Amino acid sequence: MSTGNLVRDDSKPAEGEQAGGWGREIYALTERLFPLHRSITGDGVRRTLQIMGEYVPLSISEVPTGTPVFDWEIPKEWTVREAFISDSHGRHVVDLRNNNLHIVGYSMPIRATMPLQELLPHLHTLPDRPESIPYLNSYWKEYWGFCLSHNTKLGMASGDYDVVIDSSLEDGHLSYGEYLIPGDSSEEVLLFSHTCHPSLGNDNCSGLAVTTVLARLLASRSLRYSYRFLWAPSTIGSLAWLSRNPEAASRVRHGLVLTGFGDPGAFTYKQSRSGDALIDRVVPLVLDGFGPGSRIEPFSVYGYDERQFCSPGFNLAVGRLSRTPYGQYPQYHTSDDNLTFISPRQLGEALAVLVEIVDALECSERRYLNTSPYGEPRLGKRGLFRPIGGSGLSRLEEARLWALNLADGGHSVLDMAGRSRMDFRTLRTAIGELTACGLLREIADADASPSPP
Amino acid sequence: MSTGNLVRDDSKPAEGEQAGGWGREIYALTERLFPLHRSITGDGVRRTLQIMGEYVPLSISEVPTGTPVFDWEIPKEWTVREAFISDSHGRHVVDLRNNNLHIVGYSMPIRATMPLQELLPHLHTLPDRPESIPYLNSYWKEYWGFCLSHNTKLGMASGDYDVVIDSSLEDGHLSYGEYLIPGDSSEEVLLFSHTCHPSLGNDNCSGLAVTTVLARLLASRSLRYSYRFLWAPSTIGSLAWLSRNPEAASRVRHGLVLTGFGDPGAFTYKQSRSGDALIDRVVPLVLDGFGPGSRIEPFSVYGYDERQFCSPGFNLAVGRLSRTPYGQYPQYHTSDDNLTFISPRQLGEALAVLVEIVDALECSERRYLNTSPYGEPRLGKRGLFRPIGGSGLSRLEEARLWALNLADGGHSVLDMAGRSRMDFRTLRTAIGELTACGLLREIADADASPSPP
Amino acid sequence: MSTGNLVRDDSKPAEGEQAGGWGREIYALTERLFPLHRSITGDGVRRTLQIMGEYVPLSISEVPTGTPVFDWEIPKEWTVREAFISDSHGRHVVDLRNNNLHIVGYSMPIRATMPLQELLPHLHTLPDRPESIPYLNSYWKEYWGFCLSHNTKLGMASGDYDVVIDSSLEDGHLSYGEYLIPGDSSEEVLLFSHTCHPSLGNDNCSGLAVTTVLARLLASRSLRYSYRFLWAPSTIGSLAWLSRNPEAASRVRHGLVLTGFGDPGAFTYKQSRSGDALIDRVVPLVLDGFGPGSRIEPFSVYGYDERQFCSPGFNLAVGRLSRTPYGQYPQYHTSDDNLTFISPRQLGEALAVLVEIVDALECSERRYLNTSPYGEPRLGKRGLFRPIGGSGLSRLEEARLWALNLADGGHSVLDMAGRSRMDFRTLRTAIGELTACGLLREIADADASPSPP
Repeated sequence: MSTGNLVRDDSKPAEGEQAGGWGREIYALTERLFPLHRSITGDGVRRTLQIMGEYVPLSISEVPTGTPVFDWEIPKEWTVREAFISDSHGRHVVDLRNNNLHIVGYSMPIRATMPLQELLPHLHTLPDRPESIPYLNSYWKEYWGFCLSHNTKLGMASGDYDVVIDSSLEDGHLSYGEYLIPGDSSEEVLLFSHTCHPSLGNDNCSGLAVTTVLARLLASRSLRYSYRFLWAPSTIGSLAWLSRNPEAASRVRHGLVLTGFGDPGAFTYKQSRSGDALIDRVVPLVLDGFGPGSRIEPFSVYGYDERQFCSPGFNLAVGRLSRTPYGQYPQYHTSDDNLTFISPRQLGEALAVLVEIVDALECSERRYLNTSPYGEPRLGKRGLFRPIGGSGLSRLEEARLWALNLADGGHSVLDMAGRSRMDFRTLRTAIGELTACGLLREIADADASPSPP
Repeated sequence: MSTGNLVRDDSKPAEGEQAGGWGREIYALTERLFPLHRSITGDGVRRTLQIMGEYVPLSISEVPTGTPVFDWEIPKEWTVREAFISDSHGRHVVDLRNNNLHIVGYSMPIRATMPLQELLPHLHTLPDRPESIPYLNSYWKEYWGFCLSHNTKLGMASGDYDVVIDSSLEDGHLSYGEYLIPGDSSEEVLLFSHTCHPSLGNDNCSGLAVTTVLARLLASRSLRYSYRFLWAPSTIGSLAWLSRNPEAASRVRHGLVLTGFGDPGAFTYKQSRSGDALIDRVVPLVLDGFGPGSRIEPFSVYGYDERQFCSPGFNLAVGRLSRTPYGQYPQYHTSDDNLTFISPRQLGEALAVLVEIVDALECSERRYLNTSPYGEPRLGKRGLFRPIGGSGLSRLEEARLWALNLADGGHSVLDMAGRSRMDFRTLRTAIGELTACGLLREIADADASPSPP
Repeated sequence: MSTGNLVRDDSKPAEGEQAGGWGREIYALTERLFPLHRSITGDGVRRTLQIMGEYVPLSISEVPTGTPVFDWEIPKEWTVREAFISDSHGRHVVDLRNNNLHIVGYSMPIRATMPLQELLPHLHTLPDRPESIPYLNSYWKEYWGFCLSHNTKLGMASGDYDVVIDSSLEDGHLSYGEYLIPGDSSEEVLLFSHTCHPSLGNDNCSGLAVTTVLARLLASRSLRYSYRFLWAPSTIGSLAWLSRNPEAASRVRHGLVLTGFGDPGAFTYKQSRSGDALIDRVVPLVLDGFGPGSRIEPFSVYGYDERQFCSPGFNLAVGRLSRTPYGQYPQYHTSDDNLTFISPRQLGEALAVLVEIVDALECSERRYLNTSPYGEPRLGKRGLFRPIGGSGLSRLEEARLWALNLADGGHSVLDMAGRSRMDFRTLRTAIGELTACGLLREIADADASPSPP
């Protein structure tokens, strides 16, 4: 069992300057991913995975159209080559070339001339945000439609319009990417981020880019758990993976759905279905250590792919981490969720939080015994306590006392963190020092007893 | 096992217009009950039960004076024919004919002339509410007295007064009424309302009238539990029933003491002795569904007949539901608690709450299995989900997802309601739809397993 | 098993006048203890114990220098005869004769002349409280130093100073005092107060004086538990006692570290390590009964000797009771914590709280059975309930109903107090009355059953 992870190694981002560096690297990746036209199938997703594959050697799975997936089946692959509305003067009022959001996802092909009145039911706008283009799709019902700004619609004169959608829905594949970093244990930490949204910055270029850089960072580390990154389209993608990987699913011990890391809001953690899984205890403690303001939400049935991982047949310990949750920022699912809405600073901080969560998960279940449990040992003679008595205590001195007090075999490191409200990093440092001078001894789980002799 | 109750049937009151209709019917009954001079024994109670018997075929029990009832015994029956105080001019300063509250309950007979000074200790008033007559009784100690407004007392000149109470305390009976609606199960829901208060509108003509109309409504329904309505005098009445019906008492699985439904205050639920009985979970959830403002009080030893049902020898799961609790409104136990203090609207809403509680009790222990538990089933193809993806979710759509997620055999419908904070009605509708299309299957308790295969 | 303690006997302080009397007596003792120069060893501690020995026949233990005490050993005994700094005119700028705080505890001897610049690192002041002398010590590192007011230091001109510390560190003993009051049971209540602080009023002349007077009060009482008072220096003193008395330590069922009772702040209770020991439930209920404002702190690893009693090898149920906790009042560990900072009134109230805690501990585990558990017994015929029904209930009437309701064998008196929020005193009175008239019967723990037949 490796204990090296108790002390942070140098392959991970620190706060401040370096986090800024990581943030810029993540942002650069979002800039490459943003322009691609993703959907739940198609070449946009394949190109996305290809770019992420430059960072980590992910493997891509292709699931054929028509493959049964529990209560669903893999849909046809959608391709759109051209889509526009032109007025009687031949001016393109709406054109997919200008913004990937202009077309309702999975729109059927059409080539017709029709009066405005007939076209209107197919035009989707946001009257409350008249300059913004909404994002919509119709995966499971045959439909065609355009999304545009409300002001553009208001400017459309009555009369005939040419409507062109050169799309196809044909047998093909659904694509997803996977990257497994093996650890000492075959138990897995599942980290999921969805690939199906087109040109939206926060939802979800931010999630894809942060997880990709995280994967590359973890690849060089010695780890207790195995870490599986999964990048797949929402719902049908996670379902496809679950249906094809029942054994891997059964090895998932902790998991997170990761998305929405670029906006300026506070971190928000949504609990797993049980609400008291280890991941549900670790993430809030880590967020606390990053300062006030983070929020914890109870499990609910609506949201992203935690809906599938937390369905009763799987009931995995998968929570969701984001900044402002979906639907709670006005730019959500509009053309205003673009590259100006997200920032390197937010992305870098999200990476730092995720690294800290990994560090915390790695040590959370470790247990230690105080080898000098009768009264406090004399830390001063070991250089671990200030020599002249007065008042006050440094955080590290306090962490040492907590570690000694709770190292009774009955408390894991997670229990120590929860009880002491010390951040994991300081606690790990204290445990490392006390282990080094022989005052703590790591024990296997089997050695644990609630009260030492 | 009947599942029909998951969908509301037509024999019960809906909100709005129809509730108003029920409210007027209940109020009409309070108008008939109000003038009767009730006490813990006597013809006032008999006449009350007789009128209620026009609504439901209740049975009346008569327990003879002197019958031992645990630590108590049935008292003599009290009858008062005439009671007044007249001044030296023969004017009746106080006369029972004007208000039933004028006489202290169970007053001994007296016929005497005495100076004001001697009379004063027998005159009870409310100096803080000088126009109101208080309500008092002296069941267990021989006494006589009058209740009158403070202003009336202030107007009494010194001098001699004739005091007449033509009452008798003789061997007789204590009367109570009962009505049992048998259900699929012999387990009972006990609904108690006290009969012993004279002309007070909220306390307790309102409780008697609401429960009577509720009884008539339930009589035509197919029910899971058996419902026992019990209308008896406080304390000695509930004790008498308990002492004579130990087997029925042992079948009580849930119960409510019901009183004070006509005032404009918010609903208040007082928990049963255990505080975590099923009834203690159901009622707050139902009240939540009726809007904000309802209050939950922990169990306490003072109050109405829940004191007896929750004594340690019985320890029944009996809570108490009212609007403003006794003693917390200034009209309480005064002549201001009259027919103008209560309103049809409040009474009708109380009936709607009680019907909803019954509906919730009926389904609370049911359990369902999701027949498609691996991931979410595709609701769209069954017409149970909006076709075009965007954001937001209707309450009913959310209820469907909750029902599917928690239908793992480990969660009852009550657990679902508590976890999801969905109101029972919406949840029942969702469960009904999902059962109809085969996505849910009701299971017997024995089938329940915490995690389906 | 004695039941006499359910009713308060006359040997303890009442509130108001008498508490004032006790407060003056306690204060008089602090006046005698304050001038003594205590440290973790030495004659100041011996003289302190000697004075306290005039109140109770405590026994004094002397542990030789060098004795191993777990991870520590008993240090040399420190004696200081003279300590001053004099300027070039022979004026004593700082002199131990003026204030015991002037010397850093355990200072090594020195006799030297040095320029101010060389002296400065050995001068300790409080720039934020320029008139106050701080309190410091250096038990475990060889050092010498003086504490003085910041203004005094600012007034010291450059030039040479004579520095004289006539101290010695020699083999000797560490002294502690103990006083055991045997009760019916050999299970012990440990009451600890530290002896090592020199002339500080609140920390800890107040604790020493209050516990001494408490010990004298309890000596004449018939008690269920045995009470052990322990007066020892902090850390090394409690460790010494623990290392020499493993059997007594194993008999400690409840315990309190007691200190800081003279300041005007509210009472503060720090929970034991488990946080849910019986003492952790009793003390907050008692403090509630003394009015609002008291505070409960969770266990933490920093503080007084609860650190040792709550180390994982012992894990005793020892909490800490004080008024304002250490470090949270500006006078803490300065010359401003003197006899004017503490008052007889505060000291007397602390004694009353402690007596009430003892009374509560004594009855907390007792259990009773209601001999008339079916319904409420008729209290009126026993003179335990007001005869004429109305509304409202006295505290004692309410306590009687609670005691009857919860006397089911499953609730201890502590459970009753916690559930009813009745203060222990009223509850004890009610239980006494109900036991006297046969409605309650005390049972041995083995008789307890959750629901009586």
